[in-house]
Amino acid sequence: MSIGVAILGSTGSIGRSTLQVLARQRERFRVVAITGHSNRDLLAQQAQEWKPAFVGLVNGSREPGVGSRNGTSCLVEAATHPDVRIVVNGIVGAAGLEATLAALRAGKRVALANKETLVMAGELVAQAAKQGGGEIVPVDSEHSAVLQCVAGRRPAELARLILTASGGPFRTWGPDRVSKASVAEALKHPTWTMGKKITVDSATLVNKALEVIEAQFLFDVGYDQIDVVIHPQSVIHGFAEFVDGSVLAQVGFPTMELPILYALTYPDRVPDQGVRRFDPVAAGTLTFEALQPDRFPAYVVGREAARIGGTAPARFNAANEVAVQLFLEEKIPFGRIADVIERVLAAGSRELGAGASLEDVLAADAEARRLAQEAACS
Amino acid sequence: MSIGVAILGSTGSIGRSTLQVLARQRERFRVVAITGHSNRDLLAQQAQEWKPAFVGLVNGSREPGVGSRNGTSCLVEAATHPDVRIVVNGIVGAAGLEATLAALRAGKRVALANKETLVMAGELVAQAAKQGGGEIVPVDSEHSAVLQCVAGRRPAELARLILTASGGPFRTWGPDRVSKASVAEALKHPTWTMGKKITVDSATLVNKALEVIEAQFLFDVGYDQIDVVIHPQSVIHGFAEFVDGSVLAQVGFPTMELPILYALTYPDRVPDQGVRRFDPVAAGTLTFEALQPDRFPAYVVGREAARIGGTAPARFNAANEVAVQLFLEEKIPFGRIADVIERVLAAGSRELGAGASLEDVLAADAEARRLAQEAACS
Repeated sequence: MSIGVAILGSTGSIGRSTLQVLARQRERFRVVAITGHSNRDLLAQQAQEWKPAFVGLVNGSREPGVGSRNGTSCLVEAATHPDVRIVVNGIVGAAGLEATLAALRAGKRVALANKETLVMAGELVAQAAKQGGGEIVPVDSEHSAVLQCVAGRRPAELARLILTASGGPFRTWGPDRVSKASVAEALKHPTWTMGKKITVDSATLVNKALEVIEAQFLFDVGYDQIDVVIHPQSVIHGFAEFVDGSVLAQVGFPTMELPILYALTYPDRVPDQGVRRFDPVAAGTLTFEALQPDRFPAYVVGREAARIGGTAPARFNAANEVAVQLFLEEKIPFGRIADVIERVLAAGSRELGAGASLEDVLAADAEARRLAQEAACS
Repeated sequence: MSIGVAILGSTGSIGRSTLQVLARQRERFRVVAITGHSNRDLLAQQAQEWKPAFVGLVNGSREPGVGSRNGTSCLVEAATHPDVRIVVNGIVGAAGLEATLAALRAGKRVALANKETLVMAGELVAQAAKQGGGEIVPVDSEHSAVLQCVAGRRPAELARLILTASGGPFRTWGPDRVSKASVAEALKHPTWTMGKKITVDSATLVNKALEVIEAQFLFDVGYDQIDVVIHPQSVIHGFAEFVDGSVLAQVGFPTMELPILYALTYPDRVPDQGVRRFDPVAAGTLTFEALQPDRFPAYVVGREAARIGGTAPARFNAANEVAVQLFLEEKIPFGRIADVIERVLAAGSRELGAGASLEDVLAADAEARRLAQEAACS
């Protein structure tokens, strides 16, 4: 009996890669539900090919043959469909959070590419998983790398994580030049092809700050146990250091298909030929550089948000979403992104008590967005 | 209750490193037995510090306070001592094989640094382990690396191993210059400090051919599933590729203490502060090169011996031991080592049937040594 999969964001980058993986693994998995945001044509095409029981279009009117459900509620419906065992959450932004929580409460595995889930509401996610018996398995290449290194080990054996960062397109630029970088320059990522928002986050290294926050929850480690190193070739995706001083790393040519497949089959591995075979000689020279904080001020603010905890990570994330959107619309220069986030964070954070709800988190999110707009326009 | 350890070759490089590790782990392990080859003073000093129940000196007369037993039989006695749970076999050469077999039959774990054990008699070792309930855990840094990558996984998930080789001191030399290399030049290893014999084996890459043979037995993989890559920095010690295409690697600054500790605690890890903490930035630039067969003819012969199987690996190993000894005595030039081995192998190999005994293996070994002496003097 094959395993039922829901793909939230099936028309996006993660969703399309997931379908490519599943096309090679049809005897193990079947597609039960897909949802798209607004790319109706591609969604219809996917629905035709995969014949899922459920098709949802977030930004769409009800239309037979395309979305059987519409609006954001279709995400929760897809994520909790009774025939679904694994939910691939490839949605960008806060919209993915509610679906994750619902899936976990319904006992599903969530293959998580939506960073906002853990950044905004790590504690709520842990509660939901405990309550419903669901589990999170990361799809991010860096977290997948660490998971592959620690899988099967006792959590107490893990001493430290090192996440790698390509450094993005501005790694070697001076701070002045970076602050005036154009949208086209920010979208020219050296090693990965991804969506626009996440590509800008790779240029600011906000992406890496979000991953530090996520890693705290995924691996139950303290902020001080997570290091980041610049590794421009993106061949080593993450390191795990154990209590005896030994270090494992996950290595390979950049592809999202491998982390997606691993999230589907974890803790097992299944034969798959879709990924370019690793060859250390072809990988070439591997280098590592310390991260220069003055080049990545938004990253520094993000690590501070991670240290503070409470609603600070949610506020950091919200302010960044607003700032990146304004940058992509060419309303603020690249150099203002960090500035906007910093001003939102400076407005203060709140503790998230044991009784915190999704509403509390969304309120912090909304307030941060409002403050970010104000900061950007002042 | 602490775990009893026997150290065969306690005065050698592996033995001394083992005692350094155990000095930090006194609450977990105690030294029950030590044996040395001929360094009586150091053995006496170790006996005084560690107060083992058994002290053996292979090349020694009976002398109270130093060796309680003498001759090669002391190795088996130490390895099968009833209070011993783990035997660290750090003996160089064929003398270590009998002790390994005895320990496995007595149900002990053998932390194996003695390459000859598996190279000469992989099948016998497997039989002995099955018979007595013992197990082999490798101490070699390359095999330890692979073991750390695959520990806890199903064997069927492993697709390929890649062992790394520093390339030794002659990696960038032309074949002509290599063939005339002096003893001092061959002993100048770029990244590891080891015994003389193994250092020469690193210069010829015979060491790596022996590791390929060992890996076949340790990880139950075919000859075609084991690759070797030159990695001059010796920071990545080995790679394991899984059936889904993912690759894990074990990484760290060169030290034997970590593989030794892991062999003692496997599959667990225990807190230990003795190893230099890994830092990717300090590790610097990592490079990988394809192995150039014309530079390492002895390696090529060794891989051929691995492919042939039967007594070929034992003959390869014996011929190499003789040739290296003659080189260290300056009786043959460096370039003759491969030549001697090749001529011994060309004399033919035998199948090792299911009923093969230690005597059969030792006979092949003895014959190969005789042929090697002849080949060297002709």
